[in-house]
Amino acid sequence: MATNRQFVLAQRPDGVPDDEDFDLVEGDVPEPGPREVLVRTRYLSVDPYMRDRMREGESYAEPWDVGDVLRGAVVGDVVESNHPDYDEGDTVTGNLAWADYAVADADNLVAVETGELRESVALGVLGMPGRTAYFGVTDVLDPDPGDTVVVSAAAGAVGSVVGQIAKLNGCRVVGIAGSDAKIEYITDELGFDAGINYSDRNVAEALAEAAPDGVDGYFDNVGGDITDAVFEHLNVRASVAVCGQIALYNEEDVTMGPRKLPTLVETRASVEGFLVGDYAPRFEEASRRLAQWVQNGDIEFRETVADGLENAPDAFVGLFEGENIGKQVVRVESEFDSS
Amino acid sequence: MATNRQFVLAQRPDGVPDDEDFDLVEGDVPEPGPREVLVRTRYLSVDPYMRDRMREGESYAEPWDVGDVLRGAVVGDVVESNHPDYDEGDTVTGNLAWADYAVADADNLVAVETGELRESVALGVLGMPGRTAYFGVTDVLDPDPGDTVVVSAAAGAVGSVVGQIAKLNGCRVVGIAGSDAKIEYITDELGFDAGINYSDRNVAEALAEAAPDGVDGYFDNVGGDITDAVFEHLNVRASVAVCGQIALYNEEDVTMGPRKLPTLVETRASVEGFLVGDYAPRFEEASRRLAQWVQNGDIEFRETVADGLENAPDAFVGLFEGENIGKQVVRVESEFDSS
Repeated sequence: MATNRQFVLAQRPDGVPDDEDFDLVEGDVPEPGPREVLVRTRYLSVDPYMRDRMREGESYAEPWDVGDVLRGAVVGDVVESNHPDYDEGDTVTGNLAWADYAVADADNLVAVETGELRESVALGVLGMPGRTAYFGVTDVLDPDPGDTVVVSAAAGAVGSVVGQIAKLNGCRVVGIAGSDAKIEYITDELGFDAGINYSDRNVAEALAEAAPDGVDGYFDNVGGDITDAVFEHLNVRASVAVCGQIALYNEEDVTMGPRKLPTLVETRASVEGFLVGDYAPRFEEASRRLAQWVQNGDIEFRETVADGLENAPDAFVGLFEGENIGKQVVRVESEFDSS
Repeated sequence: MATNRQFVLAQRPDGVPDDEDFDLVEGDVPEPGPREVLVRTRYLSVDPYMRDRMREGESYAEPWDVGDVLRGAVVGDVVESNHPDYDEGDTVTGNLAWADYAVADADNLVAVETGELRESVALGVLGMPGRTAYFGVTDVLDPDPGDTVVVSAAAGAVGSVVGQIAKLNGCRVVGIAGSDAKIEYITDELGFDAGINYSDRNVAEALAEAAPDGVDGYFDNVGGDITDAVFEHLNVRASVAVCGQIALYNEEDVTMGPRKLPTLVETRASVEGFLVGDYAPRFEEASRRLAQWVQNGDIEFRETVADGLENAPDAFVGLFEGENIGKQVVRVESEFDSS
C-alpha cells in the first residue's frame, strides 16, 4: 500500500513561520467512507490568511491546534469514489489537507474544468484569489470610469487581478509592490498605469506623482505603512476595500499606527473589510466572468510553482517575504509519479 | 448709534483653546447693503468642529486666519431688512458672526418657526446637530430592530438624539459619556438601555456587560481610546459612522493608536466618515421628522446655556472639557436688552 505524507502544525509560529513549525508525517493512504472520495493532490494553494489560523484565539477562520493537519485549497484527481457524482479520474477542487492523498466529503468538492489551462488556475485566477479580486472591485470599491484605483501587493494572486478588473472598468490603476521585477510585470505585461516599488520609494511621495488626482479606490492587501501612505491621498467619498493585512499577520500583538478616523471625517471616505466567502451565492457569476476575461486575454496571470509537497512550508513562508509573482502554488503530483 | 461686539481669532490655539486665542472687538453696528438684512443675535452655537477651523491647513471646513471674525450657526431677529422676503421682527437662522449684530445675505438665511419651543432649538435638536444624528443613524448606520447601537459623547447635542432615534428603530442603545450625571440623564430621562461612564470604567470591560451580544452599530463622536474600546466589540458586518473626533481635535499632529483594519477584515465591518452638509438636499425631510418626534415627546432634549456673548469662548472650550449636557448655546440677547 502507498504511503501518504501530510503536514501538521508542529508548534504555533512566533513571528514569521519557519521549518520547525511544520511536521511532515507519514502514514497510510486513507480509505474513503460512504459518499466520500479519495483525492490525489496535484496542486495545493498556500495563502496568507493561513497564518491567522496558526495563532491561538479568535479569527474569522477557525484556529488550528498544534498537531492538526494543515488544510487549504487543493486541486487533485479522484482515485477512488464512493459517491455517484464522481468517477475515478475526475479533477476536483476543495478544502483539503496539505497531503499526497486526502479523503473528502464529496459534497464539499467542486469539479474542475479548466480547458487548455493548467488545473492550478482553479487555485488562482479562476479560484478564490480571482473571486476575491472580482467581488472586491465590483462590489466593495465599485469604481467609476476615470477613477484612480490603487492596489497593494499588486503583483500577487489577488492584486494582479484587481488591477486588471479596474482597468476593464476604465480606471487609472496604480500598483504598489516590492521589487522592480514586479513593477515591470504589472506595468508592462498587465497594463497598470503606474507602479510604485515600496522598497526604494517613499510611497506617499510616489503616490503624489502616480495618482495626481488623488485616490478614489484602494484595494488593501497589506496594511501597515503602505496603507498609511495611501490614506494620505484619499479623495472625498473614496472607498477602501480591506482584503488582507499581510504586513501584520506575523505580529502577535495589535500594532500601533497613525489614527485614520479623522481622515475619514475629512474625506467622508468609507472603509470596508470583506471576505470572499460571504459572496458564496455568487461564485458562479464570478467564475464565469473571470473565465471569459482569461479566455479573451483581458486578464493575464502568472503562477509561481514550488515543486514537491515537502516544499509547501517554504512556499508559504515565501509569501511573507514577497517571493512570488502571481499565485503561489505547490505542485504535488511529481511526488507520487515516482512512487 | 449702538456698538457691536464681535469675536475674532486672536491667535491659533496650541492644544486646548484658551481666552488668549479670542479677541472681543467693538465697532459700529454694520449697515445692510442691497438684498441684505441686519440680524440681532439671540443665540449662537458653539460646536466642536470649529476647533478644526482654527488650525492652519486643509480640513473639510475652510480654516480661519488670525484676525478673522469667528462664525457659526446663529438664531436672531431681523432688525433691518433690504430684502422682500424678510421683515423686521422675523426670526432667522444662518451662519453668522459671533457678534451682537451681523449683516447677512438674505439668501443664506432660513426663517425659524419653533412654535412653543425656545428659538435656540434651531441650533440643536432641530438644527445641525439633530440633522447630523438623523442622517448618521438613518443613512449611515441604518440599524435593524434588535441591533445594539453604541454612541459616544452620548449626552451631547448629537449623541443624545442619535440614541433616541436608534431606540425609535427598536435597537438596544448603549451610551458612553464622562460623568454620572450624564449617564443618569441618558438612561433615566432619554431611555437608553445602558450607559458607561468612561471616567470611572474601563470601556472595553463595561461594554462586555452593556452590549453582551456585541456592537452592530457605532456612532462615533469622539475617537481615541473610547473608540478603540468599541472596536473590540464590533460584530460581523457592523457599521461605524464617524461623525466627530473630539478627543483628537486639539492635537496638532496625527496621533497613534491601535491599527483597526485587521478588525475590519475579521468582522467585515464598514467604517464611514460623513458630514451632515452632504445631505443638504434632504434637510427638510430631517427637520420635519425631528420636529414631529419632538412634538410627540419621542425625542427629548436639553440645552446648556451660557449667558452673554463675552462667554462664548468659555462655552466653546467647555465642549472639550465635557461640561455641557445636551446642546451648548450662548444667549446673546440679554446683552442688548440692557443697552
